[in-house]
Amino acid sequence: MRVQSPFRTQKDSVAEKSGPVTAAIIMAPAKKNILERLDAGEVVIGDGGFVFALEKRGYVKAGPWTPEAAAEHPEAVRQLHREFLRAGSNVMQTFTFYASDDKLENRGNTQRFTGQQINEAACDLAKEVANEGDALVAGGVSQTPSYLSCKSENDVKAIFKKQIDVFVQKNVDFLIAEYFEHVEEAEWAVQVLKTTGKPVAATLCIGPEGDLNGVGPGDCAVRLVKAGAQIVGINCHFDPDTCVKTVKMMKEGVEKAGLKAHYMTQPLAYHTPDCNRQGFIDLPEFPFSLEPRILSRWDMQKYAREAYNAGVRFIGGCCGFEPYHIRALAEELAPERGFLPAGSEKHGTWGSGLEMHTKPWVRARARRDYWEKLNPASGRPYCPSMSIPDGWGVTKGHADLMQQKEATSKDQLKFTYQKRSKC
Amino acid sequence: MRVQSPFRTQKDSVAEKSGPVTAAIIMAPAKKNILERLDAGEVVIGDGGFVFALEKRGYVKAGPWTPEAAAEHPEAVRQLHREFLRAGSNVMQTFTFYASDDKLENRGNTQRFTGQQINEAACDLAKEVANEGDALVAGGVSQTPSYLSCKSENDVKAIFKKQIDVFVQKNVDFLIAEYFEHVEEAEWAVQVLKTTGKPVAATLCIGPEGDLNGVGPGDCAVRLVKAGAQIVGINCHFDPDTCVKTVKMMKEGVEKAGLKAHYMTQPLAYHTPDCNRQGFIDLPEFPFSLEPRILSRWDMQKYAREAYNAGVRFIGGCCGFEPYHIRALAEELAPERGFLPAGSEKHGTWGSGLEMHTKPWVRARARRDYWEKLNPASGRPYCPSMSIPDGWGVTKGHADLMQQKEATSKDQLKFTYQKRSKC
Amino acid sequence: MRVQSPFRTQKDSVAEKSGPVTAAIIMAPAKKNILERLDAGEVVIGDGGFVFALEKRGYVKAGPWTPEAAAEHPEAVRQLHREFLRAGSNVMQTFTFYASDDKLENRGNTQRFTGQQINEAACDLAKEVANEGDALVAGGVSQTPSYLSCKSENDVKAIFKKQIDVFVQKNVDFLIAEYFEHVEEAEWAVQVLKTTGKPVAATLCIGPEGDLNGVGPGDCAVRLVKAGAQIVGINCHFDPDTCVKTVKMMKEGVEKAGLKAHYMTQPLAYHTPDCNRQGFIDLPEFPFSLEPRILSRWDMQKYAREAYNAGVRFIGGCCGFEPYHIRALAEELAPERGFLPAGSEKHGTWGSGLEMHTKPWVRARARRDYWEKLNPASGRPYCPSMSIPDGWGVTKGHADLMQQKEATSKDQLKFTYQKRSKC
Amino acid sequence: MRVQSPFRTQKDSVAEKSGPVTAAIIMAPAKKNILERLDAGEVVIGDGGFVFALEKRGYVKAGPWTPEAAAEHPEAVRQLHREFLRAGSNVMQTFTFYASDDKLENRGNTQRFTGQQINEAACDLAKEVANEGDALVAGGVSQTPSYLSCKSENDVKAIFKKQIDVFVQKNVDFLIAEYFEHVEEAEWAVQVLKTTGKPVAATLCIGPEGDLNGVGPGDCAVRLVKAGAQIVGINCHFDPDTCVKTVKMMKEGVEKAGLKAHYMTQPLAYHTPDCNRQGFIDLPEFPFSLEPRILSRWDMQKYAREAYNAGVRFIGGCCGFEPYHIRALAEELAPERGFLPAGSEKHGTWGSGLEMHTKPWVRARARRDYWEKLNPASGRPYCPSMSIPDGWGVTKGHADLMQQKEATSKDQLKFTYQKRSKC
Repeated sequence: MRVQSPFRTQKDSVAEKSGPVTAAIIMAPAKKNILERLDAGEVVIGDGGFVFALEKRGYVKAGPWTPEAAAEHPEAVRQLHREFLRAGSNVMQTFTFYASDDKLENRGNTQRFTGQQINEAACDLAKEVANEGDALVAGGVSQTPSYLSCKSENDVKAIFKKQIDVFVQKNVDFLIAEYFEHVEEAEWAVQVLKTTGKPVAATLCIGPEGDLNGVGPGDCAVRLVKAGAQIVGINCHFDPDTCVKTVKMMKEGVEKAGLKAHYMTQPLAYHTPDCNRQGFIDLPEFPFSLEPRILSRWDMQKYAREAYNAGVRFIGGCCGFEPYHIRALAEELAPERGFLPAGSEKHGTWGSGLEMHTKPWVRARARRDYWEKLNPASGRPYCPSMSIPDGWGVTKGHADLMQQKEATSKDQLKFTYQKRSKC
Repeated sequence: MRVQSPFRTQKDSVAEKSGPVTAAIIMAPAKKNILERLDAGEVVIGDGGFVFALEKRGYVKAGPWTPEAAAEHPEAVRQLHREFLRAGSNVMQTFTFYASDDKLENRGNTQRFTGQQINEAACDLAKEVANEGDALVAGGVSQTPSYLSCKSENDVKAIFKKQIDVFVQKNVDFLIAEYFEHVEEAEWAVQVLKTTGKPVAATLCIGPEGDLNGVGPGDCAVRLVKAGAQIVGINCHFDPDTCVKTVKMMKEGVEKAGLKAHYMTQPLAYHTPDCNRQGFIDLPEFPFSLEPRILSRWDMQKYAREAYNAGVRFIGGCCGFEPYHIRALAEELAPERGFLPAGSEKHGTWGSGLEMHTKPWVRARARRDYWEKLNPASGRPYCPSMSIPDGWGVTKGHADLMQQKEATSKDQLKFTYQKRSKC
Repeated sequence: MRVQSPFRTQKDSVAEKSGPVTAAIIMAPAKKNILERLDAGEVVIGDGGFVFALEKRGYVKAGPWTPEAAAEHPEAVRQLHREFLRAGSNVMQTFTFYASDDKLENRGNTQRFTGQQINEAACDLAKEVANEGDALVAGGVSQTPSYLSCKSENDVKAIFKKQIDVFVQKNVDFLIAEYFEHVEEAEWAVQVLKTTGKPVAATLCIGPEGDLNGVGPGDCAVRLVKAGAQIVGINCHFDPDTCVKTVKMMKEGVEKAGLKAHYMTQPLAYHTPDCNRQGFIDLPEFPFSLEPRILSRWDMQKYAREAYNAGVRFIGGCCGFEPYHIRALAEELAPERGFLPAGSEKHGTWGSGLEMHTKPWVRARARRDYWEKLNPASGRPYCPSMSIPDGWGVTKGHADLMQQKEATSKDQLKFTYQKRSKC
Repeated sequence: MRVQSPFRTQKDSVAEKSGPVTAAIIMAPAKKNILERLDAGEVVIGDGGFVFALEKRGYVKAGPWTPEAAAEHPEAVRQLHREFLRAGSNVMQTFTFYASDDKLENRGNTQRFTGQQINEAACDLAKEVANEGDALVAGGVSQTPSYLSCKSENDVKAIFKKQIDVFVQKNVDFLIAEYFEHVEEAEWAVQVLKTTGKPVAATLCIGPEGDLNGVGPGDCAVRLVKAGAQIVGINCHFDPDTCVKTVKMMKEGVEKAGLKAHYMTQPLAYHTPDCNRQGFIDLPEFPFSLEPRILSRWDMQKYAREAYNAGVRFIGGCCGFEPYHIRALAEELAPERGFLPAGSEKHGTWGSGLEMHTKPWVRARARRDYWEKLNPASGRPYCPSMSIPDGWGVTKGHADLMQQKEATSKDQLKFTYQKRSKC
C-alpha cells in the first residue's frame, strides 16, 4: 500500500526544502471540492475534536470552551491541524466557535483578543495547514442561545449571517452547520449558508430517538435536504455505534422521500452505551473523567468500516478524537482509497510493529485477529461499566432550559452558548 | 493563588514581543540546579512520556520506538516540550533514547537521520524550551542489551560513556539513569554518570517485588545511593499506586542504612492493578488498547499527594502522561509550591469551570468532593476490569530472554533494545 | 407488623401438635379463589422456580429438566413447596411439566416412573402443602413441540386437553397457561382451559419486542383476554425490569381495547440487560454459569414495588427464584397486605438483624438506605458485566427451528420440549 | 464411571423399600473412620454451609444465626443434610453452633427451645442422615467470646468441655475445632478435644497474612499439630483460591518442622479477591448482597482440583456452598475416587446434558472447554467488580474489639458470639 507522500513543509524541519506557500501553490490545482469528491465516490476523512484535544494540551478552558488559542497560542492550534492532516484528514475545520465578542468577555480569554482577531487567525491557520496537503477548509456554525431563547427566525438567521461573513471573506471551501439539537434551527442555518453558494453540510447532535422536539432522524434528514444541505449526518453527543445507527435512519428517511444526499458522521471518541437522548453531557463523567471510555484505534477501525458499510462517505470525529484515531479511520479505509495517510509511516497496521519483539507473547500480538477480539480491561476494578445519566428528565429539562424569555440571565445563557460549537 | 507568569516566547504568537533567545538570557540567572531545589525542600515536577504521546500524534512508531522525530519533525517535539513546560514541568528530558546508529537502521527512522543529528537536535529542542521557563534539561541513559547479553562491566560502561559525551558537550543540567530492571546495571550507569560532575538521578522500573534478580527495593536504593546517585526512585512499568508503594520501600531501606537521598517517581499514566512483576508490557492490552486504563486528572492529583506524603519531591510521569496530567500534579501541589502553572489559566481547579453551567446537575459537578468520589464507568460492559498478564513466568522468561550469549540474533536483541528508553 | 401465624403442621416437628390433614380442614373454609382475591384488590404472591431450585439441590437434571422427582424424591419437592409457602406464596404450582410418557423415556427419569405416577404425586404434594397454609393449587400447561411442528389446532388442543384432565381430576384451584413464545398457541391453550370452568391465567415468555411472530405485547394481551383469560402477563426468559416493562405494554393494550384483566409477572431471578428477544437461553451463561446474575433480596423488593406500581397484583417468580426471593416480595408488599409471611420470623427487614453487631461498620448496614443504594461487586475482576447472546438471529433461527415438518427428528424435538414448562 | 448406589431410604418415597434404621444397620459396618480414610489416601468430601443455605430457605435468621431450626424445623435441616449426602459429602457436621442457652435468648429462637433440645436434635438429624449413606458425623466447636474477652485458659477450655460432652454422649465420629481467628485459642480447643480420644481436626478462618495476632499460617499449623490435631486447615472467611493458598503455607510449615498432618479446606462459595485480612464480613456486601460473588459449579471443580493438587484430602465448603457445589467437588475428583456421587444421576458432567439441544449454539455448550473458559457476565453494568472492605484497620479494630474487659456490654459481646460457628 502506497503511503501518501509526506508533506515536507514545516518551517523548521531539519530537512526542509520549501515553505508552506510554495507547497500550497504546487498542490492547490489538484484539489477537488467536497461535492466533487463525494460525487466521485471518494471517502472524505474529517478531522478530530479541537476543544477536547487542546484542553488536554493546556490551551482551552473546560467550561467556557472559547477558542482564543487561535490568536493566543497559534503554534498549538497549527500543530494540531498538522497532526490531523498527517493522520489523513481531508478537511480542516476552522477553530472559531464561541468567537463572538460577547462570549469572549470574562472567560478563558484572559488576553482579551477580539472576536475578529480570533476568527481571522483561525481561518489563516486552517488554510495554512490545509495547503500543506490535500485538505479543504470548512467553516462552521452551530446552535445558538437565541434559538433556545425563542428569538425570531430573522434574529437567529442574522447571527448565522454574521458568522458566515467571515468565512466568505476568508474564502473557505465549504460550510458546515453542526451541533444542532433541534432540526428547525438547523434548517434556518442551512438556508443562510446556502446564500453563499458554497457546498453545505449539516449535522445534528441527536441519537435514534430524534431531536429534542421529538422529530425522528429520518424526518430530520429530509427537512435538512429540502432546506438545501447536500451532506447530512450526525456529530458529537454519542459514540460511533449510536451515530452510525442514527445516520442509517436518516438515510432511510431521505431515500424513502425520494431525495438524494451525501452522509457524514463525526461521533465522540468515547463509548456511551449508557447515554439517554441528551447525550454525553448528562453522563456523570462529563467532562473530566471520561478517560475509561476512550476508543482504541481498533474501535475506530470498526467504526470506519461500519460507517462505510452504512453508506457514509464523509467520516470524521468530534470530542475525544486524537490524531491517531483519525489515522485509524484512514488506515481502515486505505483499500478503498488506494493509499495510506502520511502518518502511517509511523504505524504498523494491526500491530505489525510488534512482529519482531523478542518476547514471543508480545510478538503474538502483531496481528489483526488479536486486537480485534481483545476486550480491553479497564484496570479499575472498583468502577462500574455503565453510569446512570444525570438530569431531571427530558421533558422537564426541555421546559426549564429551553423556553427561556429574552431576559435570560447570563448564567442561563452560558449553557446554550456552550453547545454552539462542534464540541 | 498566583498563576505562574505566562511564558510569552513562542515565535509566532500574535502578541509576541521577544524571541526565545532573549527569554533565555533573561531567565537563566534565576535557575537553581536540581539539587539546590531539592535541598531547599522544593517540589520538582517532572515531564510526561514522549514516546507514547508522540506515537498518538503520529511521530513515533510503536515497536521500534526510535526518536528520529527530534530531527525529522522538530516542531512536534518542541510543541510537546512546551506543553509540559506550560503544564508545570521543571525538567525537560531530552528526547534521545534509541538514538544510536545501529538502532536507527531499518526502523521507523525512514529518513535515515544519523544518531548524531538526532541527539543534537533533541538537546537543542529541550534547551530551547527549558529556557522559555524555569526548567532544567536532563539527559538520560537506560538499560542496555549488552548487559542482558552478559557483556563485561567495562563494555557496558563504555556504552553509557558514549551517550553521556553528547550530554556533556551540550551541557545539560543533570543526568538521569532510568528504566533499569537490574540494579547492578543501574549502579554501573551511575558510576559512569558521576564522572561528569553533574547531579545524578537513578530510577528503576520495578515494583515491590524488586528487580529481576530478586533484589528488594530497599536494597536496590541503598546500592544506588552508594554508587553515587543523589536522587533515587522508580519510573515506568507500573501505575502510580505501585510506584509510590515501591519508592516508600526504597526510602525505608536508605534510612535504615543511615544514608540520605532525594526521591523521585515517574510512573505510568495507566492503572495496572493486574500487573505481575514484569510490568505493563506483559498486559494483553500493551501497547495498543490501554485507553480504558488512562488515569484522570483527579487520579493524578491523588498520586501527587500520595507521592508528596511519602517524601517524594521529584514527581513526574512516564508513558501515558499527557500535559494535563502533569498540570494536575502541579495543581495538587500548588499550596506547597505557592503558585499554579501557566497552563492553569485554562483550567478551573476541581471542575470549577462548570460552576456557571445552566443545567443544575452539571453545575453540581463543579466541586472537589464530586470528582474525588466519582468511580468513572468504562462504557465497556463487554470488557473485564482486569487482565491476566501474558508471559511464561518470571524465572523461565528470565533464563530464556536474558542469559543470551554474544551471538544473540538481531531479532532477539530487539526486545532488549526496546527497553533502553524511558518508555 | 403482624407476622403470619406460623404453619405448625410439619409431621416431625419437635413441637408438632397436628398433622397436615387437620390443618387443611381447619384452614380450607377461609380460602378465597384466585379471582376473588384479585377482584378484592389483594396482592397474590406466586411461588418460585422449581426446576432451577431442584437442579441445585440434586433432583432435576439440566437438559431433560423432567419432573420425576415428584414421585422419586417427594420429600425434596414437598420441602421446596413448604419453603415457598413459608416465604409467603399464595399459589402452589404443581411440579408436572414434561410429565408425559414419551418425554420421560431415556431422560433423567432413570427410575422410569410413568407420567401418571408423576402427575398424581405432584398434585398431591402441591395440595398437601397448600393446605398447610392459605395457598391455592394451580395446574399449568405450556407451549408444545406440536405447535412448533405446525400440527393442526385440533392436534395441539388435544395435547392440552389430556394434561388438563389430570388437573380436573385432582381438582386444582385454577389453571395457568404459561411459557408461550407465540400468542396463537397460548390462545388455543386458554380456549381449552376455559372448558373446565376454572379461572384461567395466561403468561407469555416474551419481552417488549413481542412474540416470535412479531405480535406486540399489547396485541398479545388483547388476544389472550378475548380468548378467555382473566389474568394475563409474563413469565420466565427475562429479568424483572424487562417483564414489568412488558406487562405495562400489555396493560396499555388491554385498556386501549376497552377490555379488563388482572395482571401477573413471574420473571427470572437473573439480571438480563443483555438479552435479545429470545431471552436468557441464548446468553452464553445459560444454564450453568448464571450465578453472578442472581438478584439479591433488595433487587426483589424493588421488583415487587415496581410491579405493584404498574398495576400487577399476581406477583411471583420463575427460574432462579429461591424461597428468600419470594419472601422479599412479601416483605416489600407487607404494608399493602397488612402482614408479613411466616418466614419473616427469621428475617429482619432491611438488614435490621445486624443492628446489634459489635463492629460499628457492620452495624451501619442495618438500614434500608444502605442496601438500596449498594451496588454489589461481582468479585470477578476478570469477567465482563454483559455478554453477547448466542444465536443466528431471530429470523434465521425462527425459520430453521420452528418451521419443522412432522418428521422432525428426535434431536430437533428436544429443543421444543424443553420449552414447555414454566422453566 | 459408576454412580454411587442411590440411598433409597427416605421415608415417604413412592418406591421406598426400607426405613433409615435398616439402612443404617446395613451400611454401618462398612464405615471407616476419618483417619483411616485419610491415611489410606482417600478423598473425603465435606459438606456445605448450613447457616447461609437455611437462611435462604427461611429457617435461620441472619444476625443472630442461631440453630434452633434443628428442633423447630427438623424437616428442613434433615433435607439439607440429605442433599449434601446425595451430593457426595462424607461428613455430616451437626447443626449446633450458638446452641448455648445464654445465646439462644432473645434471638431468632422465638419458640424458646433449650440448648439441650437443639443440640440433641441436631446430633440425631446428622446421625440419621449419615446412616443413610457412607458419611461420618462430626461435632464442632468454634472461637468463643470468652477468649476475646481475655478470660483465662481454664475458663475458655471449660466452655469447650461443656460443648463436647454432648458430642461424646451422642457418640459422634470425630471432632472439628473450626472458625478460629487466633491460633492460641484453637490450640486450647484442640487440647480439650483430644481428651475424648476421638480424631481431631482444626481449621482457622485466616488468610495468607496469618491470624489476627500476626502468626503466619505455617506457624499456626505447626502449633495445631503439636497440640494434637491430626487434620489441620482453613475454613470460611475467604474464597477457595485464598484458602488453598493459605493451606499450602500451612503444609510447608508442617513439613519444614518435620511433622505430619492431613489437610482440609472448607472455604466460602463467594469470590473474595478484595478482602483484607479480616475476611468477607468486612466486605460491604456481607451478608445480604453477596449473590454476584457466588461460585459456579465450574469454579468449584477448579477449586477441588487445586486443593487436591496442593495435597488437601478433606475438601468441603462453608458459607454459600449449596448441594450442587459439593457435587461439583465430588465430580471433579471422581477419577481419583472411582465413583460419582448419587446426585450425579441428575447431572451431566461438564454440561453434557445439553448435548442434544436443538439450537446448535446451545448444543455447543455441552463441553468442558466451553464452561472452563467462559468468563460469566454479571448482568450488572452499574456495579463494580471489587469493593473496598469496611473497617477501621486491623490494628485499631483489633485493639478496640478484642481487648475487652470482662464487663463487656451485651452488644459488644454479640460480635464475638457471631463468630463462634462454622459460619
